[in-house]
Parts: sequence; C-alpha cells; structure tokens
Amino acid sequence: MSFPSWLSHLYRGLSRPIRRTTQPIWGSLHRSLVQSSQRRNPEFSSFAVRTNTCGELRSSHLGQEVTLCGWIQYRRQNTFLVLRDFHGLVQVVIPQDESAASVRKILCEAPVESVVQVSGTVISRPAGQENPKMPTGEIEIKVKTAELLNACKKLPFEIKDFMKKTEALRLQYRYLDLRSFQMQYNLRLRSQMVMKMREYLCNLHDPPDQHGETPSLLKGAKEFLVPSREPGKFYSLPQSPQQFKQLLMVGGLDRYFQVARCYRDEGSRPDRQPEFTQIDIEMSFVDQTGIQSLIEGLLQYSWPNDKDPVVVPFPTVTFTEALATYGTDKPDTRFGMKIIDISDVFRNTEIGFLQDALSKPHGTVKAICIPEGAKYLKRKDIESIRKFAADHFNQEILPVFLNANRNWNSPVASFIMESQRLELIRLMDTQEEDVVLLTAGEHNKACSLLGKLRLECADLLETRGMVLRDPTLFSFLWVVDFPLFLPKEENPRELESAHHPFTAPHPSDIHLLYTEPKKARSQHYDLVLNGNEIGGGSIRIHNAELQRYILATLLKEDVKMLSHLLQALDYGAPPHGGIALGLDRLICLVTGSPSIRDVIAFPKSFRGHDLMSNAPDSIPSEELKPYHIRVSWPTDSKAERAH
Amino acid sequence: MSFPSWLSHLYRGLSRPIRRTTQPIWGSLHRSLVQSSQRRNPEFSSFAVRTNTCGELRSSHLGQEVTLCGWIQYRRQNTFLVLRDFHGLVQVVIPQDESAASVRKILCEAPVESVVQVSGTVISRPAGQENPKMPTGEIEIKVKTAELLNACKKLPFEIKDFMKKTEALRLQYRYLDLRSFQMQYNLRLRSQMVMKMREYLCNLHDPPDQHGETPSLLKGAKEFLVPSREPGKFYSLPQSPQQFKQLLMVGGLDRYFQVARCYRDEGSRPDRQPEFTQIDIEMSFVDQTGIQSLIEGLLQYSWPNDKDPVVVPFPTVTFTEALATYGTDKPDTRFGMKIIDISDVFRNTEIGFLQDALSKPHGTVKAICIPEGAKYLKRKDIESIRKFAADHFNQEILPVFLNANRNWNSPVASFIMESQRLELIRLMDTQEEDVVLLTAGEHNKACSLLGKLRLECADLLETRGMVLRDPTLFSFLWVVDFPLFLPKEENPRELESAHHPFTAPHPSDIHLLYTEPKKARSQHYDLVLNGNEIGGGSIRIHNAELQRYILATLLKEDVKMLSHLLQALDYGAPPHGGIALGLDRLICLVTGSPSIRDVIAFPKSFRGHDLMSNAPDSIPSEELKPYHIRVSWPTDSKAERAH
Repeated sequence: MSFPSWLSHLYRGLSRPIRRTTQPIWGSLHRSLVQSSQRRNPEFSSFAVRTNTCGELRSSHLGQEVTLCGWIQYRRQNTFLVLRDFHGLVQVVIPQDESAASVRKILCEAPVESVVQVSGTVISRPAGQENPKMPTGEIEIKVKTAELLNACKKLPFEIKDFMKKTEALRLQYRYLDLRSFQMQYNLRLRSQMVMKMREYLCNLHDPPDQHGETPSLLKGAKEFLVPSREPGKFYSLPQSPQQFKQLLMVGGLDRYFQVARCYRDEGSRPDRQPEFTQIDIEMSFVDQTGIQSLIEGLLQYSWPNDKDPVVVPFPTVTFTEALATYGTDKPDTRFGMKIIDISDVFRNTEIGFLQDALSKPHGTVKAICIPEGAKYLKRKDIESIRKFAADHFNQEILPVFLNANRNWNSPVASFIMESQRLELIRLMDTQEEDVVLLTAGEHNKACSLLGKLRLECADLLETRGMVLRDPTLFSFLWVVDFPLFLPKEENPRELESAHHPFTAPHPSDIHLLYTEPKKARSQHYDLVLNGNEIGGGSIRIHNAELQRYILATLLKEDVKMLSHLLQALDYGAPPHGGIALGLDRLICLVTGSPSIRDVIAFPKSFRGHDLMSNAPDSIPSEELKPYHIRVSWPTDSKAERAH
Repeated sequence: MSFPSWLSHLYRGLSRPIRRTTQPIWGSLHRSLVQSSQRRNPEFSSFAVRTNTCGELRSSHLGQEVTLCGWIQYRRQNTFLVLRDFHGLVQVVIPQDESAASVRKILCEAPVESVVQVSGTVISRPAGQENPKMPTGEIEIKVKTAELLNACKKLPFEIKDFMKKTEALRLQYRYLDLRSFQMQYNLRLRSQMVMKMREYLCNLHDPPDQHGETPSLLKGAKEFLVPSREPGKFYSLPQSPQQFKQLLMVGGLDRYFQVARCYRDEGSRPDRQPEFTQIDIEMSFVDQTGIQSLIEGLLQYSWPNDKDPVVVPFPTVTFTEALATYGTDKPDTRFGMKIIDISDVFRNTEIGFLQDALSKPHGTVKAICIPEGAKYLKRKDIESIRKFAADHFNQEILPVFLNANRNWNSPVASFIMESQRLELIRLMDTQEEDVVLLTAGEHNKACSLLGKLRLECADLLETRGMVLRDPTLFSFLWVVDFPLFLPKEENPRELESAHHPFTAPHPSDIHLLYTEPKKARSQHYDLVLNGNEIGGGSIRIHNAELQRYILATLLKEDVKMLSHLLQALDYGAPPHGGIALGLDRLICLVTGSPSIRDVIAFPKSFRGHDLMSNAPDSIPSEELKPYHIRVSWPTDSKAERAH
C-alpha cells in the first residue's frame, strides 16, 4: 500500500511544505520494513471489527462485502462522503433510495470527523469518475448499513490544515493535531526506524534490547528530584543511563542496547524537551572504529527507503580541523565556504588591525569566501555582519570585493596591494562575483566568528534564492580527538571534563595526564548530521586507578558519590565503550520537521508545560506530607501564585 | 550455540535449583529468535577486538588462529585456565616453555575474574581429555600471546555460587551478581522474549512500537511527585500510560504498543518495585475477544522454545465463577481442590453452626477436598487451619474424614448422618484417604476462606512430598465480567471503580448504570498465569456523555482533573480497548525465579533502595531552592536524620 504518496498529493496544497526533504512516500517505509525483516505485510485489520482498512481497497476488491471504520473526512453534497482511517481514504456512496432512509440520515447528518462504521460492496466508479490521484480512486463503496460510532463536536480547527494553527493550539488539542497527515507520517516513520534499529542491533549484532532496562529512580542529583517517603531523601531522574550501562559491561553482559528515556531540566531552551529519547548503546572489547562502524551500519540499515541511501563510511575530522575549517565542532558539510588562513598574505600589510593581530602570539588573519556575494548581499547585509562581529566577538570584519573596488566598498580595502589581491584570489579560489570576509585576531576567536558568519551568510544567500544546500542531502560527519579537559569557566586554572569524567584519554596522550593534562585528547567522538550533533560517545576508562586519578587529582571531585563505580572497575571491568544517538533530533532531521515537537506524540511546550493536561500543576499540601516536603514560596509569592 | 545446556550442568551443583521450570537451554532461545525472524545468527564478535567468543569454538575451528577476551573462571594448577565470556567457557593451555615466560606469568598470576585477552591456535585436546559436558570440550587454546586487560581484586563473594550470598550483598555488588549464569540467563531470556513480542506486534499486526512514546512527566498526581521550577507546581510520574494511549487512539493512530516504564509508590510491599515495566497495548475498532486473541498469539509467538509450547485459546471464567470455584479472582488452575457448595446436604442438619448459617440469607455450606489429606496432613496442621479460619475470617472449619471416624476427628463430625456422608462422597467425589474441609456462612466469605485454604493446603501437601502442580506447566486463564464498581471501603454507600473509571460497562448491563449500578458488570479482563495476575485490560468508554455520567454522577469525582480526556471523547473518539502485561512478573514466572528482582538488572530493595549506589539520598538544601521546596522534618527529625 502506498496511500501516502497520494495523500501527500492531497495535502500538498494544504500542509506545510516539508523543509529540506523529499516528499514522503509512506508505502516505501512499509516495504523497506518488510524487506528488511523478510516478513509479510502486517495484518492491519487483524482482531478488529473492520474487514479492511479504507486505504487498501483496489479494483482487485471489486464485488467484495467489506466493513470499514473511520472518520468522515468530508461530504460532497449529500451523495458522497470520504472516509479516512490511519491507512488512507475511500469514497462512500450515500444511498438515495427511500428504503435506505436511515442509513442516509446517519451519513448525511453526522458532522465531519465523526466516527462511523459502514458495510457494503466494493464497486467500480462510473466511467470517467475515477480519481488517479487516489490509490482507491478506481473504486467506491455501495453502502448497505451504517452506524454512527461517535459524533464529533465543532472542531477548534480543521484537521487537514497543518499551518494555520498556532503551536499552542496544536499542543492543547494534540489528539486532534495527531490526525494530520504530517504528524501521522512523522510518528510512523519514527516507529519504523526504531524497529529497524532494533532488528539491526538485536538480531544482527546482538546487543540485546532491554537487557539494560536501567532504572530511572537514581541516587539524588541536581536535576529533576523525586522526593521519597524517607524524610530528606530524594531520588533523581537520569540524564542518561551512563553509569548503569557501564556497570552492565562490568557485569559481563557483553553488549547492551536500549531506547532510553532521559531527562534534562534546562528550563525553556528553544527546541529542547525536559524528557527526550536516546538510542543508547554500550559494548565490551570494542574500540572507537568498532562503535563507529556499528553506527554507520545501523543508520544505513534503518534509513527510510524514500530518502537517498546512506553512504558509509562517514568522513571524519578532528576537533582541531573542524574548528579551523568551519569554526565549530559540528560543521554543516553540505556546502563549502571553508575558513582559510591568509596570514602569510598580510605579513607586511599597512592595514592597522591586521598588523596588530599578526604581531601578537596566535595572531592570524582568516577569511571565508561568499560565492556570488557581490550579487546576493546588499550593503546593509555587510553592515549588519560587521556589527554582529563587533558586538558579539569584538572583532573587525573586512569585506573584500575582489573583482573591482565598489564605490561602497570598505575604504580599508583600498590598502590591499594588487599582489595581495592576486594571492588572495589564488588561495581562496574566488570567482568574479565573490566577496571575501576577512578578519584578524586570535586563532580560535577568529575561527568561531567566521564559523558563525559562514552559517549566517548561507541562510542569507538561500533566502535570496541561491541553492547552496541540496535539500535531499544528508551529510554525516564524525568529529574526533576532542580535548579531554576544558578550563573551568569560573576558574580557568581548574579543569572540568569536556564531556564526562568516564571518557578515556587518547592512547597516545596518556602521558600528558601527568604533565600537561590540558593538552590531552580524549577518545570521545561526536556524530554530526547537516550541522547538528545527533550523537556522541566514547571509549570509557576501565582502569580504576586512572579513573580515581582523573576524578580526585585532576577534577578535584568528591569520589564518594561515585565510589560504587570505582569499586566496580576494581573487580575486573572489561574495556568498553558506547554511544548515544538523540532520537528526537535524528527523526526531526530525517522528516525535515521544523521542531522536535513535531516528531514527539505528546511534547512539552517551550516552558516545559503539557498544554493539553496542564502539567505541571499545583498539589494540595496534604499530598506533599508523605514526602516530607513543603513549598517555599518566593517572597512575591502571591503574584507567583496568581499567574 | 547451546553452551548454556552444559553451563547449566556445570552450575547445577552450585546454583539454586530453578523452581517450577525446566532447566534452561539457552541455545534454543537463540534458535527460536532466529527462526521467528528468519534471520541468521547474530554476529557476536562484529566490531569487537576478539575474533571469536569463548563459547562458540568447536572441532570445526581446529587450526584457526583466534583472539579471545574474557574473565578467568578458574585455573587448574598452573597448566590450564578456563576463560569465560557472555557466550560460554573455553579451556586455555598455559605454555610451559621458557620462551613463553611472560605469557605464563600473566596467566598464572592474574587473579580469578581478571579480564584477559589471549591469542593462539585452536587445537584438539589430547585423547581421553575431552569434556563431553562442555560444548567446547573437544578443543583447547594453545596460547601465543596474552594481555592482562584488567586485574580483579579479592571478590566479596564467589561469582559461581548463586545461593550462598544474601540478597543485600547481591544487590550491593549487582555488577558481580550479574555475572552469574542465572542472572545472565534471565536477562537474556527477557530481552529475547521482548524482541519477539515486538516482532509479533510491530511486524505482524502493526501496533507500531514507539508510536506512543507517552510522556513520563505528567500532571501532578498523588504519587512520585517531581517538583518543577515553578513555585508550587509539580509533575508526577505515570502509574501507567492509560490516558495517553487512549488519546493516541482519539488521535487516529489506530494501534499502539509500548514497553512502558511505570511507577507505583507502594512503600515496601514484598516483591513489588517502585518502577516496573509493562507491555502496553491499545487498539481502535476492537472488541474484547480481539484483544484476547492478540495476546494469546503474542504469548504463543514469543514463548521460549525450551518451555512447553503455549496452547491457545486460553480458558475463560467469569469473576463470579472464579470466586465460587476457587475463592479468588486469580485462580491457580494447575490443580483441582475446587470449592463445592454442599448446602443441600445439610438442609436438616443438627450441627449448630451449619443450621445458623443456612438460616441466614446468602447462607451456605461449602467445602474443599484435600486429596490424601488423611495421609499427608498432621493433626496440628488441621488445628492451625482451624485457627487461621477463626483468626482471619471468624469462621469455623469442620474437617471431615470420610473413610472412618478417626479418634482425633472433630467430635462435631460424628453428628453427620450416614446419608449425609454418602451424599458428600458423591458430590465431592472423594477417595478413601481424602479429607473434606467444610465451612458455613455467607457465600463470598466462605469462598474466600476456602480459596485461601486451598492454596495453603496445596503448598502443605507439596512440602510433604505430594506432586500436585506440574513444574513444567504454564496454566493461563482469562477472568472476565468483573463488577464495574465496588462499594467504597470507607463508605460502602458510595461507589468506586473496580479497576479504573475509563472501563466500559458490559453491553448488556448499561441499563443497570441508571438503576442498580452495583450490579453492572464491566468489559474488564484479567490474564492469570499459575495463580498470578500477569495482565489486565478493558474496552474503554468512548462516549463522552457516558464517561461524564460515571465520573460525576456515580463516582462523584472532580471532572476538572480529566477535562482534557472528556473533551477528547467529544471530538470523534473511536471505540477502543487495550491491555497491559506485567513484564517483570511474566518473566519471573517463565524463568521460575523466586523474585522479580531476579529478572531486573538493577532492582530496588524491599524498602525501595538501590543498595549499590545508595538511592534515595540526601540533597543539599541549596539544590532544593530552584524547585521551591523545603524538607519538613518530622518532629523526631534528629533520630530520623541519624538513622
């Protein structure tokens, strides 16, 4: 069955165009699932009162007596109605003869989105009335009996229309929003990708699903506390099953896989959810390349068939390269505009801020090339770019138009000598209409700035009509060799883990832990897709001594909190490593959805609210008693309580 | 691979005999999984540094160069050691020649349970030294190189031994307890059964897994509160995804399936866990028999091959029959000893307490027959039975020995006339050595008492050596037609839902809702296995008016809390129903484990503690501030804080 192909046609006019992805073809998802598991199509009507789904009926069913259940999508005069279920639409003929008055009454009076059950015969449509856009377009149902299963009140919004609703309205009436084609497609694709991931992992490579079933009521931590019935004692919800999956490896379970629910209380960060889902994997006796190959195979195997196939292996860049070339540790590699070091061009420049920069240690001159920038960028664009650089990075940006001195070009540019101009053109391989954005300063700072501008300009060029990023392209990238430690923000002389303290150091950098720990690289790896971090993992420390040294000596942490893990490492912990993929983000990118809230059945709002059931909510104080807690109202509590 | 067959041999002496189940044969679990999904065996060493697993090597591998990783199970003198991984054991020959001194040193000095990596050649064992009990018993490994991956400190207990450890010790060192064969078998069986359930549901019958991904931070309820950053506002953790799975059906998703984590704060009820896992299913356009057939197919499909196959359909009894025949709504149907009504026998008895009982309305005389009771039960057993009846039910029990008047028989029994004796023998089909336990009183009370005694006596007979329940037998049973309401304990004139307020009434009892609601039966169904409730579900109310009437008028509940659900029913909710299976309990019964803690990787203790990481734990008060809560210490807080 491939109804969504037509359904997408049907909705194309109405529903939000799907950003950065091809039109979904649901049928292919089904086929791919079926192919992957060598299994017949699921029986969509098994155990149900219907004989068939609305979407599956074809000419091959002509003459069959069928019973269908579904929602009234719309009614044409009082002669036809279109019935919808999860699998598609079918046309139902409303009988006109007096003998069928009762059936006619039901089908004509039931409001749109009411649920009805009809029984009748599959007949072919009168010649000329076939609808080639509909998979069921050759047939219609001649109704014998009809039953109104449930009437529908006046809707707060139309089901069909995806865009017009505000998100608040969509979330408040989520059960109606879920009836939209887009939401049903997203959730269907999500469930099918996850099932194929399970097949790949559990059946092909044996990290048994569920093995782990790691607990979600943990030792108290900073976030999402759960008061217990013991005074002053709290559980907390897991940010990730990190410790427990490591302990499973110590327990000799060899391989572990879980679709894990995790929690992060980050207040209202845009497009974050307080609870999210990750594909969580841990394996014993593996190295970094082992995990990477597993993930490449996993994504290739589970990738929807209606998208271009995933090409493996994924390219790899080091953290240092990524920063130098793209100014970020999660580069969008779907397009160029790479950062180029042009320090040598300006060794003996007369331009002041370049001289200053180059005179300092780590001082560099860097640039990116905006293709056809002279054509697409307006003067005010350049000005806002320079303002952005000054405001956020305290950096100067020098725009250079290499083809000719525009009258509105930066006066400073005129100090660039012809030789330098030619050298720039050679180094940056610029074309006639390109614009070079040039900045000078400390390496990391300059790169970060140009990294930001690279993305800003890419968006700008695309809004101006240039096609820079292929909407059907999924560009995966491994970023490796991250630093093991970072200087603490509050006190740069102290260290904190770049990721988490269980990350193993790079084999060739272990000696640095005892000399220059800041220089030590880790065995952490990030998976990046189209400029979004969709996963990260590492080889873990399995040696108790090393773990103690890093926790106690280098990170100055209280090892008591982690004593059970340190003890576990002492009892024959195997070398192990793992990774976690952010499922919501991944599905969001695959479906081209604007927000992860479009790939979660019941997401929380920006402010972490469930607008449908109104959570979080107030609790009568007597119900707090068993948990030995009281609300401590802020001083302006009345105001708070009022709002 | 079928190493566990031998492993179970190896451990049989050491490990706890597996109660009420056959010895597991792991290999068959693998085969069943592979058969079910038409897929080749998983690659257990893909992406790993090892070439093979310890358990898979056979004569067919002779001459192969292999690299193995595993734990040192034991060492015989300094000539052999046995290496263990998740897949089995293999014998490694420690080289004796001087040239291999370094390898020898590593293998001889590493403590038991240390993790080593060895490379060498698969050779056949010298004639006569094969071990037929070991799948790898024909071969051994001639080591070339060895590496100590991680040394093991002195263990708190031996890995091999399952019984000797206290449970507290097992939970404190769970990561070591998980290395025992029994735990690895339980978790492996659990993960494989769940995966087969996913295949059956997602791939064969299309309730898409994950669709639901229902949230776990809900509108505040009584249990397991999660303070939010808004003063006085709380989330709570779900007891079940009930409301959300119903809303998914309203959302038109047709079918839903989820392995759902749920939470119940019941303090320290024996063999309960504050967090547990259920197989959660909901379907649209389905009736009771549809759900029941789905579940029967699900269990048949996912049942381990090393157990007797599941026979479907499962027998069904009504709640009323179950109570009358077994004195409970979850009967253990593996044996007889049914409750029989013998009121008619004693219509004109001279025995006082029988007369009294029969003179009252609903007064009955009931009995169960203890097979060979005269042989197996001691006098003191009979006395403790009578004491139990008096203490807990305020009921008299009359033991009747039908073969002859024992001198220690109850004097009252002598008042039983010969005709009554013969009628009893006929009605209860008693044999020579049987004992009849007879009681009189109100129907439900008498049945409940005899239901308890039935189980008590069954256990008693089995401790005395009688085989009453076949240890390999899995006896499934549907219990249906429960009452929709029960009288409130605190105020019997008010009603409460027997299960939950969304349960649909029995079609033929709807009129009773408006006349005698107490008499109305529901469309709830329980699944019982060997006397344990392992699942329950119902057809739900999809009509908003009926739902409002039941909530507001009959249950006197505040409908505000559920306004979003009532609203959803108004917007074209389809008829729907579902069920939830308790996964932990099910796996516990399948594996014959004494406690559900033996089928959960990281369970909480009786008191809801994680003895390994010490959760729940105290939290510095400043970390409570963001959540606007304070601990309200009990008056004897110091004592509390001390303990």
